[in-house]
Amino acid sequence: MSESGKPILYSYFRSSCSWRVRIALALKSIDYETVPINLIKDGGQQFSKEFQALNPMKQLAIIEYLEETRPTPRLLPQDPKKRVLVRMISDLIAGGIQPLQNLSILKQVGQENQLAWAQKAINSGFSALEQILQSTAGKYCVGDEVSMADLCLVPQVANAERYKVDLTPYPTISRINKALLALEAFQVSHPCRQPDTPPELRA
Amino acid sequence: MSESGKPILYSYFRSSCSWRVRIALALKSIDYETVPINLIKDGGQQFSKEFQALNPMKQLAIIEYLEETRPTPRLLPQDPKKRVLVRMISDLIAGGIQPLQNLSILKQVGQENQLAWAQKAINSGFSALEQILQSTAGKYCVGDEVSMADLCLVPQVANAERYKVDLTPYPTISRINKALLALEAFQVSHPCRQPDTPPELRA
Repeated sequence: MSESGKPILYSYFRSSCSWRVRIALALKSIDYETVPINLIKDGGQQFSKEFQALNPMKQLAIIEYLEETRPTPRLLPQDPKKRVLVRMISDLIAGGIQPLQNLSILKQVGQENQLAWAQKAINSGFSALEQILQSTAGKYCVGDEVSMADLCLVPQVANAERYKVDLTPYPTISRINKALLALEAFQVSHPCRQPDTPPELRA
Repeated sequence: MSESGKPILYSYFRSSCSWRVRIALALKSIDYETVPINLIKDGGQQFSKEFQALNPMKQLAIIEYLEETRPTPRLLPQDPKKRVLVRMISDLIAGGIQPLQNLSILKQVGQENQLAWAQKAINSGFSALEQILQSTAGKYCVGDEVSMADLCLVPQVANAERYKVDLTPYPTISRINKALLALEAFQVSHPCRQPDTPPELRA
């Protein structure tokens, strides 16, 4: 909590983990304060003692917590069978794709291999995802209601574009991504509109 | 479902994702049939058309589904603040450590770098985890009740041992792991006791 009583989000404008949570906060109309954590500056501010003490590893757990404490609008469907689909898709993205192409891994892989590595991780995950979505999607990832899966999808597609992945083989992913980006919650939370977005990347 | 009406688990004896689910099934006394999927043989049976069609990417979603449809005994605490801790720890292991040291990534990294890569991924995650557990643990990862976090911990410690990670810096992780391995659900689900465990690895 901040001094004003608002929840604080430790956020990096370009991080897909931060973006997911920003979308959830926007959908649930939760007012919050941003404390920027620059994942690149000073060798990565997330490695500072102050931040480590805050327990950095959260990701989907924050969204599940928001869902339990602020259930409206719901980000998990009421039906357990649909809920397992939403969590499966969220896991596939947040546990199966994103960790393989995040900054710390790409640093380990070495500069000349980064692009190919990231593309391979994303293409391999998107092939599975495209197939799954063909059976689960309506307007969005699972049926016609925005869910946690959609919060994971949009930031991951942005990463794919950043790493120049050809999205032609993924028509369902592309269609859903476009529909979601038309929604206000996905726009106000966008990396190009954050307090810590550098001027040259603003839109 | 199998012909006998039991749920089917597509499982590989050594996979930490499979083991997590086996522990949940054992704790909830759910009888099931195992269909072995050998992640190495035939270039990886999980890549077969038949298996792909079953939607392979599940992991924690299966456990959340079991929790919702078979709530006793609970694997998520009743209190939302404790639940977020359980999910945070589960995410840290299942999304932050395991994907970086699984078979397909190690194949990409190349044989001579595999051990160092896996050790780095595990040490980096375990350092964060040890710190978190020091404030959340009782007998187990969060307080004194077995939770989803514990289902993630034990298979990950087994992976650490397999990759010869020195566990001396992680006394809390080691203590909890030992306490959990004394429980029947963690023993019957153990990789050394599965239908597809090769004879030389049985115990």
